[in-house]
Amino acid sequence: MADKITPRSEDYSQWYLDVVQAAKLADYSPVRGSMILPPNGYALWENMQRVLDGMFKATGHQNAYFPLFIPQSFLSKEAEHVEGFAKECAVVTHSRLRTTADGTGVEPDPASKLADGENLVVRPTSETIIWDTYSRWIQSWRDLPILINQWANVVRWELRTRLFLRTMEFLWQEGHTAHATEDEAVEETLRMLDVYTEFAEEYMAVPVIRGVKTASERFAGAVDTYCIEALMQDGKALQAGTSHFLGQNFAKAFDCTFQNKDNELEHVWATSWGVSTRLIGALIMTHSDDQGLVLPPRLAPTQVVIVPIYRKDGEKETVMEAVAEIERELRVAGVRVKTDAREAYRPGWKFNEYEVQGVPLRLAVGPRDVKNNVVELARRDEPGKESVPRDQLADVVTDTLSQIQANLFARAENFRQQKTTTVDTYDAFKEAIEQGGFVLAPWDGTPETEARLKEETKATIRCLPLESDPHYDPTEGVDMLTGQPSKQRVVFARAY
Amino acid sequence: MADKITPRSEDYSQWYLDVVQAAKLADYSPVRGSMILPPNGYALWENMQRVLDGMFKATGHQNAYFPLFIPQSFLSKEAEHVEGFAKECAVVTHSRLRTTADGTGVEPDPASKLADGENLVVRPTSETIIWDTYSRWIQSWRDLPILINQWANVVRWELRTRLFLRTMEFLWQEGHTAHATEDEAVEETLRMLDVYTEFAEEYMAVPVIRGVKTASERFAGAVDTYCIEALMQDGKALQAGTSHFLGQNFAKAFDCTFQNKDNELEHVWATSWGVSTRLIGALIMTHSDDQGLVLPPRLAPTQVVIVPIYRKDGEKETVMEAVAEIERELRVAGVRVKTDAREAYRPGWKFNEYEVQGVPLRLAVGPRDVKNNVVELARRDEPGKESVPRDQLADVVTDTLSQIQANLFARAENFRQQKTTTVDTYDAFKEAIEQGGFVLAPWDGTPETEARLKEETKATIRCLPLESDPHYDPTEGVDMLTGQPSKQRVVFARAY
Repeated sequence: MADKITPRSEDYSQWYLDVVQAAKLADYSPVRGSMILPPNGYALWENMQRVLDGMFKATGHQNAYFPLFIPQSFLSKEAEHVEGFAKECAVVTHSRLRTTADGTGVEPDPASKLADGENLVVRPTSETIIWDTYSRWIQSWRDLPILINQWANVVRWELRTRLFLRTMEFLWQEGHTAHATEDEAVEETLRMLDVYTEFAEEYMAVPVIRGVKTASERFAGAVDTYCIEALMQDGKALQAGTSHFLGQNFAKAFDCTFQNKDNELEHVWATSWGVSTRLIGALIMTHSDDQGLVLPPRLAPTQVVIVPIYRKDGEKETVMEAVAEIERELRVAGVRVKTDAREAYRPGWKFNEYEVQGVPLRLAVGPRDVKNNVVELARRDEPGKESVPRDQLADVVTDTLSQIQANLFARAENFRQQKTTTVDTYDAFKEAIEQGGFVLAPWDGTPETEARLKEETKATIRCLPLESDPHYDPTEGVDMLTGQPSKQRVVFARAY
Repeated sequence: MADKITPRSEDYSQWYLDVVQAAKLADYSPVRGSMILPPNGYALWENMQRVLDGMFKATGHQNAYFPLFIPQSFLSKEAEHVEGFAKECAVVTHSRLRTTADGTGVEPDPASKLADGENLVVRPTSETIIWDTYSRWIQSWRDLPILINQWANVVRWELRTRLFLRTMEFLWQEGHTAHATEDEAVEETLRMLDVYTEFAEEYMAVPVIRGVKTASERFAGAVDTYCIEALMQDGKALQAGTSHFLGQNFAKAFDCTFQNKDNELEHVWATSWGVSTRLIGALIMTHSDDQGLVLPPRLAPTQVVIVPIYRKDGEKETVMEAVAEIERELRVAGVRVKTDAREAYRPGWKFNEYEVQGVPLRLAVGPRDVKNNVVELARRDEPGKESVPRDQLADVVTDTLSQIQANLFARAENFRQQKTTTVDTYDAFKEAIEQGGFVLAPWDGTPETEARLKEETKATIRCLPLESDPHYDPTEGVDMLTGQPSKQRVVFARAY
């Protein structure tokens, strides 16, 4: 694990990796591109899961589980889908290992080779196996809608990986819903985009732009891909979640029909939507600083850490008694609190450890504090410490946690505002892209212009903001390159 | 899905599959041996997870996540481990698919074949990758103990599969702990066996025998495997959970050492322990009947279903108002309750549906009930229904749920008692095994006798009961086959 965190100004990429490792959020594994989530990283994911799962259930969804392995033939049933995923699939071809001839290792047993055409693909996403299943589950309008979510691991064979942002295996949730009408499916797609927006902004304290992707950035097999886009501290955009309206594409590929109320057969309408452990990357890159991780209180596994301070045995008893009482009181107030009473480590070491790990609030309690009926409180998001009267502690702690949550969001929103530019000419565009951030600019709507802009500036169209998003800008103008008419300004950025 | 459930007396195996499908707990997938968990089955697993996860955390464990893929070379580092798992491994050998020459399908792209020795195995269990990681995480006694659990999917290539009991992919948890001393590791192994026992008996209402496995049934790589064994209604035993004391085997294989307080290097001591979706099979086979699933209230996703009954529009309003009030009241009382207000289905159809699905309590509310201030209550575990005064409903419901939980356990324990025989001669043994159930018999402690008994009777030694288990029987005797001395009676049964 890194001992020192590289400053952002020196090397942003290295800073990110240093924070991830110093805060023990992820670790490399012996398989290239695979990642280990140690307890700190996984606890954060568990908290995200808990909140999202509650939001999914509150909007009528149920969880289910579909197999890890997909017959390779399934992938090719939807033409665009196979195009999008065939090139990054882990393929299982054998079912046994045997000892090598020299006895020193193992190798796939040739006798266990799967028959031609029977190879299995490790799911890169589950539309195919789920729509094969839905075609058996759905007969009548009475079976609709199906509103299912799955928490799972998926594998996409990536060559250039980066912890959390792009890994071969990642953890995610994938919603897959089936509807009787197009309207209902579109409504569901947008509902889930709203859920993601609420989660990003209210829990992660990460402001996002809500929009629709261009054809070239669409999910392979979707009619429309909606997304939330966040801005990282280095001025690069990060796609934080997507919600796809799949039309009848998968229903047609897997022959999934239902008898409507008029006894006619129709194809089912579909959506899918997902967020992944990538969100942890977004969280880190939005809030953290050169001292390490900064966590929003609503998702922090530990919101408050208490560090007891004493030297002599008599002091220990007094301090530990006070600490136990404080911990109990905060727990009752609904705070996720822990006491670090380890004697193998000194208080100063612990202060540093929890700063690096991003615990929002630190309390220190020494003999003098006990005597004076105060507790020393330090915020992770602001420098300094204050002395809080013991009898006001629970209120001050819960208030301060709310303030930190609000402060992180405000800071991130302010940063985004400063890094969002509106331009109309190509020169201004290139300069703005070079400086980083979101750039709102006209576009003629053609994939050719989009490709040329990407080639020349490495910027991509992150999305066309939805009318309900504050970044929606229906100013009619002309394309910066072609002079052709533009219906609205779209959001460009260099992206992860 | 099956319309009719085959009676147990007619065909027990078919009955089991019928119940699983009729209650929508699992479904077959296009990949042989893989299973789909529809919402009903997954909700049950979620409840099990929630309870177990709480018990793990209460005993000091944290969750983490390790990669799905393991380098094939890792498997061969522990000699017995590779012996146990090499023959049932899914092996990934390619990283891309390409379109076949005739353009009709896809196949592994030969250009993407992994280099010799770089193939990946889909984890059948995670000891190897975890101990490789621990060898990097652990340096000093200060880093110990590590108490980690993982919720994950694993794959074991099984040819003969059965829903829940034996599938190629299954969901489970695997605990992997690292300790400074042998005593501490043994203590942890037994602590987790106690956790599993409490979960099986207090939540699943499944009585279990706690014991230690013979060498031939030990986990591949363990020094000792402890287990809990349950008895199914057909008289067959089912291993419901295992906790392994791994000694220093994996620490030695992966060179995992720590500096002790005297600055000496020692190998770390290890445990691992797991339960899987197999528990759902145990639950079904312990409690269910010819009408379908029977669920213990403490794990039932829905504990109480309310079915409103009305014919005319005026009745509907009255009934739905009363139903909403009842649902609210029960929810406040902490009951997992749902109302089935669907108009596409008749009450009689719903009664049948929830009986098949094993909902512990059903309430029916009609206009006359509202008028008379009563509610009709029917228990899933006993025939008949009763009329409960409206103002006593919440108390009666919570009491009845407790009674059902206790009744299911008592019934299962009574069944087990009737099906447990103590014998001393081989003739009596063979007859008892033929009749099904647990058979306590002497054994000379040799694998040869164990193997011969298995061959001749298809019975295996399920375990040597621990001293703390009521089935512990230290009667000294002589082996039924060899006449050699036996130190205690051991538990035999035919098993799943």
